[in-house]
Amino acid sequence: MTFRYTLIGLFIALCSGLVQAREHPSIFITTQEAKEISENISNYPVLQKSFDSAVDQIEKALKNEMIIPPPGEAGGYEHEKHKQNYREMRNAGLLFAITGESKYSTFVHTMLRRYAKIYPDLGPHPLSYKQSPGKIFHQTLNEAVWLVYASIAYDCIYNTLSVSERRYLEDRLFYPMANWFSVRNAEQFNRIHNHGTWTCASVGMIGYVMGDQELVNRAIYGTKNNGTGGFLKQLDLLFSPDGYYMEGPYYIRYALRPFFLFADAIHRNQPELNIYEHRDGILKKVVYSAVQTTFPNGVFAPINDASRTMNVKAPGVLFSTNIAYLRYGKDKNLLAISGIQDQVILNGAGLKLAADMPENAPELSWPSVEFRDGSEGEKGGLGILRTGEGLAQTMLLMKYGSHGLGHGHFDKLQILLFDQGQEVLPDYGFARFINTEPKFGGRYLPENDSYAKQTIAHNTVVVNQKSQNNGNRKKADASWAERHFFDASDPSIQVVSAYANQQYEGVKQQRTSFLINNDAFEHPVVIDLFRLESENVNEYDYTLHFRGQVITSSDIKAETKQLQPLGGTHGYQHIWKTAEHQTDSLVQLTWLQGNRYYTTTVAASPSTKVIMGRTGANDPNFNLYQEPMMVVRRNATSHLFVSVIEPHGFFNEAGEVSRNALSSIADLRVLITTAEMSVVEITKKDGKTYRLALSNVGSGNHSYSVYGAESKWQGQFDFEEVKNTSKQ
Amino acid sequence: MTFRYTLIGLFIALCSGLVQAREHPSIFITTQEAKEISENISNYPVLQKSFDSAVDQIEKALKNEMIIPPPGEAGGYEHEKHKQNYREMRNAGLLFAITGESKYSTFVHTMLRRYAKIYPDLGPHPLSYKQSPGKIFHQTLNEAVWLVYASIAYDCIYNTLSVSERRYLEDRLFYPMANWFSVRNAEQFNRIHNHGTWTCASVGMIGYVMGDQELVNRAIYGTKNNGTGGFLKQLDLLFSPDGYYMEGPYYIRYALRPFFLFADAIHRNQPELNIYEHRDGILKKVVYSAVQTTFPNGVFAPINDASRTMNVKAPGVLFSTNIAYLRYGKDKNLLAISGIQDQVILNGAGLKLAADMPENAPELSWPSVEFRDGSEGEKGGLGILRTGEGLAQTMLLMKYGSHGLGHGHFDKLQILLFDQGQEVLPDYGFARFINTEPKFGGRYLPENDSYAKQTIAHNTVVVNQKSQNNGNRKKADASWAERHFFDASDPSIQVVSAYANQQYEGVKQQRTSFLINNDAFEHPVVIDLFRLESENVNEYDYTLHFRGQVITSSDIKAETKQLQPLGGTHGYQHIWKTAEHQTDSLVQLTWLQGNRYYTTTVAASPSTKVIMGRTGANDPNFNLYQEPMMVVRRNATSHLFVSVIEPHGFFNEAGEVSRNALSSIADLRVLITTAEMSVVEITKKDGKTYRLALSNVGSGNHSYSVYGAESKWQGQFDFEEVKNTSKQ
Repeated sequence: MTFRYTLIGLFIALCSGLVQAREHPSIFITTQEAKEISENISNYPVLQKSFDSAVDQIEKALKNEMIIPPPGEAGGYEHEKHKQNYREMRNAGLLFAITGESKYSTFVHTMLRRYAKIYPDLGPHPLSYKQSPGKIFHQTLNEAVWLVYASIAYDCIYNTLSVSERRYLEDRLFYPMANWFSVRNAEQFNRIHNHGTWTCASVGMIGYVMGDQELVNRAIYGTKNNGTGGFLKQLDLLFSPDGYYMEGPYYIRYALRPFFLFADAIHRNQPELNIYEHRDGILKKVVYSAVQTTFPNGVFAPINDASRTMNVKAPGVLFSTNIAYLRYGKDKNLLAISGIQDQVILNGAGLKLAADMPENAPELSWPSVEFRDGSEGEKGGLGILRTGEGLAQTMLLMKYGSHGLGHGHFDKLQILLFDQGQEVLPDYGFARFINTEPKFGGRYLPENDSYAKQTIAHNTVVVNQKSQNNGNRKKADASWAERHFFDASDPSIQVVSAYANQQYEGVKQQRTSFLINNDAFEHPVVIDLFRLESENVNEYDYTLHFRGQVITSSDIKAETKQLQPLGGTHGYQHIWKTAEHQTDSLVQLTWLQGNRYYTTTVAASPSTKVIMGRTGANDPNFNLYQEPMMVVRRNATSHLFVSVIEPHGFFNEAGEVSRNALSSIADLRVLITTAEMSVVEITKKDGKTYRLALSNVGSGNHSYSVYGAESKWQGQFDFEEVKNTSKQ
Repeated sequence: MTFRYTLIGLFIALCSGLVQAREHPSIFITTQEAKEISENISNYPVLQKSFDSAVDQIEKALKNEMIIPPPGEAGGYEHEKHKQNYREMRNAGLLFAITGESKYSTFVHTMLRRYAKIYPDLGPHPLSYKQSPGKIFHQTLNEAVWLVYASIAYDCIYNTLSVSERRYLEDRLFYPMANWFSVRNAEQFNRIHNHGTWTCASVGMIGYVMGDQELVNRAIYGTKNNGTGGFLKQLDLLFSPDGYYMEGPYYIRYALRPFFLFADAIHRNQPELNIYEHRDGILKKVVYSAVQTTFPNGVFAPINDASRTMNVKAPGVLFSTNIAYLRYGKDKNLLAISGIQDQVILNGAGLKLAADMPENAPELSWPSVEFRDGSEGEKGGLGILRTGEGLAQTMLLMKYGSHGLGHGHFDKLQILLFDQGQEVLPDYGFARFINTEPKFGGRYLPENDSYAKQTIAHNTVVVNQKSQNNGNRKKADASWAERHFFDASDPSIQVVSAYANQQYEGVKQQRTSFLINNDAFEHPVVIDLFRLESENVNEYDYTLHFRGQVITSSDIKAETKQLQPLGGTHGYQHIWKTAEHQTDSLVQLTWLQGNRYYTTTVAASPSTKVIMGRTGANDPNFNLYQEPMMVVRRNATSHLFVSVIEPHGFFNEAGEVSRNALSSIADLRVLITTAEMSVVEITKKDGKTYRLALSNVGSGNHSYSVYGAESKWQGQFDFEEVKNTSKQ
């Protein structure tokens, strides 16, 4: 088999006439870039640091015995060793390109030879689990990463090898592996999914290095060479027109690597394909939409099955932001991200960033932005409102897109709030301790399904204690939320509004969240209007998760003698009910987090229940974090929840300073709520009164009458101080 | 009255003949120091920063209207404004001394005049609460701080005032205030307590400025001028011979300010008193023992009623460490502390520190140390073992001193462990949100008495679910723990051992904790032997508080359906029992905190109960933090708890790396436990076996026989690998 493929490869290579013509290295770095890096290392601190780090890694590797273990289980020693090997190969290759020192090329060659020695005798990995198996790794995914890195390394040392040395590697290792991916596992190869992207990228990149345009074409156009699969098709279908990736930012940060590494290899070798302009510059939108879905500290908003801490330091983000900076032009926020990364990649892109980096990296300050979801932008989206600069930025995110396949959560219309450098209204993220062997082998824990995915685990409304789409993924994938409007044109009052009418049968939902930054409040506040419309009486649980310590709670008293689960299913079974309180009055809950107090004020409504909860019930193995939440519960046909989430004051325990520990809000009332319009009034303790009017339908001219006086306004919403309130 | 005191003051001043002779300023800074600061500001970054910060503060004050409000309630606006005023006066005075700019002296003079205008008409503060009242503030304590700062300010502008201007201030303000403290409230003035120190310091300092040696003498020797009260007596009685302060570090950090400000004023004006050499240099020991009771991050160990975050940035620590650096000589760790403080005081001491500060401040790395408690060193003490450097240092603290009066906790023999820059076995600290008005006015919460002070809130053993000394403060003050031995001579195995025989009737307690840093373990580990001896059967609860997430728990399953309090009194009523498990086998609990796993392994013993708990029960107002703990419970007459607290592995969620999530310990056994000796054996998963032998009595030659073989050893303890175990 090896022999046959070699012949085919040779034939194609000869036909395309590229074998002799192609420069090496060419897919990640050129000789010219390597020379410029070599000349400038000491001029740019971050370049020096990145170079030194690679040198340290390889010098250490050179001192130790080179080990090519047999295939092993996921996350185990062998698995990690193979990963370490490909990282070392890549860096050794780049160091050879930059320094010309033969110890580095010899290292790469030796390691490749050792893999070539064993590879032909390996069968499909025995421990693959629902995945398409690799040979070195349990799944082709990891093996494709191996090949991407090995391709860069091989490219760098290509010119040091004799024809027979190359043939040994290509015949025994590269061709068999590329064919394993693209012939034997052609289905996955053609699949429009980020795993497909990895295998395409790896086959295309080794194709370029070996001068095999047929392999390259297979990667770009699919195995049928007609564009029904392959890289371009993935660029066309995996992203919305705004570059948003339906599985969410945690997943795209992993896929950014093959997208950008292969794109750059294409750009360098087939510039005529204008890959960076493809689909109106979709790759730019992809990387920007990914990094704009981070909190101001560079951590990705943990939407869907996602870790709470994944951030812009991830390798995929490093590669893609560096390359985007070179290919799409300078950008202050990419410099800011590079400052957080504190590292650059060792090629022309990293060199460019290092050269442009000022002594102090700028602060990360993205503007407000909305991303449409769905490949045609037809499936709702994600709205992000921001005010302030850098770490002092306040960020409000609303999710109203599609479900996100197997990793999706039943979280439509949820909001996340970030303030003061931390999550204030957080998402639970996934229930998983990644790679922690005693926690179910580091895999998703059962509580990921039973709690983290459920609607109650999110800052949205749960209807009748059931998750959206009844917790059924297929139904959820077939439905989505819809945008209503997004307006960030006025920095003092920004707003995002969306509908979710397909999540609960017979219940229409609309959420409109304002981020207000004006003189009325000490810090930016959120005014949240969540409207539910139904012909039946339903139980509506308006849920907010928070962190920190309760300071005051308007007569809500904690359970003292006994705790029981809040419910039996749909995640409720995992919540200890720590308090329950019935009221007809205004609800206020103040908590302390970090150096600020936060108060949620919810407008009064008859027979409202306020429930406090804490995760951890029905969790025999201590798998859940123990975190607090509040639920405002109403039984009604239609109902409008109105709340203000208000950061206020200052607390510094060590400094023994506390200011404004109490909310500035004296009252919050719903004046009008109809299908057309909602009008709410906020009275502050300083006596000032503000009115917020929202059109539930469209902009235009509106009027309403309260307290015997008519008010006229126009547009989608209106917020103003009421100068002469004549309440009755 | 004012007139009379003025005459007395004038008389004394004339008699002492010092009015004309004394230089101004002289109590905190001299003209020469001010000149040197002025000349060197731009040379030393931290000096520049500290100066700029003072300038910013005063320039802002100059722009705003000067407000001298009427007296107000503690923590309220007026209270805070008076505090702001004294801070501004002091800095404006120093800025005048340094720059000579009249706007600063005018500011001080104006403010002092305005206080002098109102002061004679003020009566005792109406809102004092069990405290001796001030006039501007609700208690003399705050007012004494005011006078200390005003004295420094007055000293700085003294020479700019005419005799009549001075007389106006002294007649109406300084003499009445000094006499209010030292005549009207003479009892508190003479009291051997840190509140007394503040009033002494304030009276003495204003005495120096006004040239009134009688006031100074009153402050130094007490109102009877015979040394039965006053500053020297406080230095003699408030501290142990090692400088340890019985109330603990949280309290001394506040008292450091008057001690050092007054001491330096004495040193400058009456050098013949050799104040810094008094009681064998007790002031040096005081400041060093305070700052050595910090965790490696500069936060004070929260012993007794103490906040969890108070740190070396506190003003008292700033003043005292700066002055100590000048008066007692250079010290790398004081430089490290100054690096954390990122600020120096504006006098010769701050100048000296600023001049000596290297570009990068050194890391804080205190050595292991033991402090005796009691004014004669007779009341037990505090042992601190440390290994490693800087923030990577591991620190183990054992408390075996006196109770600490009204702020004392029933916590004898408790241990605290700090590792990886965080508390791993923490103390709850106080139950209080300082200055947070809606939390009981910022005062101690009821849960401070009912939980935080109780024995179960600490990492020690509770007998029969009752606190030490039955939770009775008077009994506790009359008893204390006793040191057994402390040995930090071998950096690979350090140990502290103490007894507590007066805390539970009929129960003798001995705890011996080793901090071991050798090749046997990945990171430093604690081996803890807690021995209880009684003739009666008691219930012993060996308690460890931790933070972080449980990873594995040797078959302990969490309660799933219902939580109830662990007990009814002595703090147990505040703990939700989250799990209970009975076993005859080894107990292991692994949790994840930060980037490390931690396992506590407890040697097997028949019918052992393992209880997991979480604070928050019987807490209707959400006053308690919700934090986990484990309790290993045995009913026995005498019993030895042996545990290993073992940091291991590495976890980085964002990096998706997990290593060694499981303990390295396979078995832990008690081989021998008698009144004379305890021998335990640790078997690691790598097959290695170690034995630790401890003499419960004294050093010398020992032998024991297990597995049919005799072992001889000598000294207080012995730890070694067992090369040829022949177990049966």
